[in-house]
Amino acid sequence: MTATVITGISVLVTNTPGGDGPLGEVTDAALVMEDGRVAWTGPSASAPAADEHVDAAGRCVLPGFVDSHSHVVFAGDRSREFAARMAGRPYAAGGIRTTVAATREASDEVLRATAARLVAEMHAQGSTTVEIKSGYGLTPADEARTLRIAGELTPETTFLGAHVVPPEFDGDARGYVDLVCGEMLRACAPYARWADVFCERGAFDGEQTREILTAAAAAGLTPRVHAGQLGEGPGVRIGVELGAASVDHCTFLTDADVAALAGSETVATLLPTIEFSTRQPYPDARRLIDAGVTVALATDCNPGSGYSSSMALAIALGVREMRMTTEEAVRAATLGGARALRRDDVGHLAPGARADVLMLDAPNPIYLAYRPGVPQVSAVWKDGHRLP
Amino acid sequence: MTATVITGISVLVTNTPGGDGPLGEVTDAALVMEDGRVAWTGPSASAPAADEHVDAAGRCVLPGFVDSHSHVVFAGDRSREFAARMAGRPYAAGGIRTTVAATREASDEVLRATAARLVAEMHAQGSTTVEIKSGYGLTPADEARTLRIAGELTPETTFLGAHVVPPEFDGDARGYVDLVCGEMLRACAPYARWADVFCERGAFDGEQTREILTAAAAAGLTPRVHAGQLGEGPGVRIGVELGAASVDHCTFLTDADVAALAGSETVATLLPTIEFSTRQPYPDARRLIDAGVTVALATDCNPGSGYSSSMALAIALGVREMRMTTEEAVRAATLGGARALRRDDVGHLAPGARADVLMLDAPNPIYLAYRPGVPQVSAVWKDGHRLP
Repeated sequence: MTATVITGISVLVTNTPGGDGPLGEVTDAALVMEDGRVAWTGPSASAPAADEHVDAAGRCVLPGFVDSHSHVVFAGDRSREFAARMAGRPYAAGGIRTTVAATREASDEVLRATAARLVAEMHAQGSTTVEIKSGYGLTPADEARTLRIAGELTPETTFLGAHVVPPEFDGDARGYVDLVCGEMLRACAPYARWADVFCERGAFDGEQTREILTAAAAAGLTPRVHAGQLGEGPGVRIGVELGAASVDHCTFLTDADVAALAGSETVATLLPTIEFSTRQPYPDARRLIDAGVTVALATDCNPGSGYSSSMALAIALGVREMRMTTEEAVRAATLGGARALRRDDVGHLAPGARADVLMLDAPNPIYLAYRPGVPQVSAVWKDGHRLP
Repeated sequence: MTATVITGISVLVTNTPGGDGPLGEVTDAALVMEDGRVAWTGPSASAPAADEHVDAAGRCVLPGFVDSHSHVVFAGDRSREFAARMAGRPYAAGGIRTTVAATREASDEVLRATAARLVAEMHAQGSTTVEIKSGYGLTPADEARTLRIAGELTPETTFLGAHVVPPEFDGDARGYVDLVCGEMLRACAPYARWADVFCERGAFDGEQTREILTAAAAAGLTPRVHAGQLGEGPGVRIGVELGAASVDHCTFLTDADVAALAGSETVATLLPTIEFSTRQPYPDARRLIDAGVTVALATDCNPGSGYSSSMALAIALGVREMRMTTEEAVRAATLGGARALRRDDVGHLAPGARADVLMLDAPNPIYLAYRPGVPQVSAVWKDGHRLP
């Protein structure tokens, strides 16, 4: 494979201790990629030659975003439900169940085409690592095919059979949990790296969450949890106890939850584009960061509560609404996401890291928050290959 | 010139009474452009043949956005000032004066290159009509060259010599107003369609505003006003009295201001990306619309208070933060902007309208608010020419 050198980088965000400031910034920098990995970083003036040369011409370069939370394998359109919610108009919709019904009816080809389009859109916006959850199938076969399709697009696949109790189990949550822990888990485990549970009033309680994640762990899946989105609950504590890689949402947290996260390796993943699209309160990133919790930003891209795939908007909202500094938000969208997926090969640009590289049409990464909504991607490399 | 037909449009937003709903929507539609104008709209099945055929393949089409308020001729970088403001850190900056100093020092070539890049970026995001103000020169020569450069990019140029009192007139606002109304106006009038004043505590008071806009009107420039951004004041009332096309910002309004706007042809232009980037309260669009005021959305793209050029984000914020329906927000970003610039050839797609056309990678215009931050432009035509 050929080597590529990018010179003339105004600011290179390495997220490593070698550079300046919290992002390990190197100014007037260059970066060499070879065999899909970062081979060298340093001053532009000392850059070695390579087969291919790209002049950044004063643009900044950072690690590709790590979007550690999405639900992009689905069918159906919920734009009118969104418009009604925003206008405060009633809308006869079944929420997640609407998407479940449409997803079950859709062919593999339709699901694959939608998911592939969305993942391509995420890549084009600089998200070089993307996690995808199941959770709109809710039968063994539909969950397994969701994860098969997701696995064609990313290694970061998450079994979320415990998203909601599907209509055919109304009044029989026990029966559904048995299905999830038994036949469904057996059908899905070969296709999933992670297991997740929506631990929330109206979804799954603490006991069910523990049971499902324990069964999943026995099947080789590492836990993650949806918790604290709509109210306080036991999800954060259980996630930390079971060694979850991440607890996601974290809007409603007790002091004990924050302390538990701070004393653990579990990341708090914040999803502010969801609060943007639901008018829920934003999570308190400041409280978490000040307590020493590792924070990630992700999009939660899904057709119901928030259909944005923009990590740049998540960063801008982190700064605007959650009192993160621009450095903290950029770090959370890169290294934070990598920690939430327990990946040490992405989220930073030290030599040896995967050559997942984002070049912005901007002189520094502050512009991600300074110019909200503006497409600023100049070029993206994934595994050293420049995306078209 | 060749004719182009777009068929297979899922939803065509015409903004004319012919179609359905508040946006004059036509479903399963087609549109023909010829000689830079819309020649025909109607059902896709009845579309006439044309030299060039574009299949929208189920995408929606709307009038290009009309961004009626921007300040994109400037020099200098204020990203670090933004980051400090967001973090609540002190920053030794002079606000607008920082940009004035950098703009005065910059060559025409530098100013032209920055402005052309930003206007191209606006076009690429679907803003086919763009207004540009002066206001970072604040000498007769620097204001005139700003407007000359702006006029190379758009016919909608606005003389804003009364942006702030420049440092060389500290303590002598009277002297500066005399300069604005005299030599500066004479130098600028040939290059401007509009005149604007920043009527706000700390900038220009009601008497000065009236004096400047009256002088400008005598020189052939139609008034617009910046008012109600930071507090209530006389700007709205004066704007309405003088027949301003638009009063812009409108965050702080008395009941009398709202009544005056409702009883006038003056548009209230709201700029929510500014509130996003300053953490100021958002204007109350609902109050204005319910009172019968014509509302426009624009970006106010500028390096200080908000550097977004995204009309899509302005729409999303209108819906999220200002309780506009998605239809109201889309209308305000198209027809509303056209009214704010007193243009009857843009902002709608009736036959005879300018062929300024935006095709989204989305089945309906709700997606502009439903998918915030996501680049969704599929194609843009300006005067019937497809942008590259």
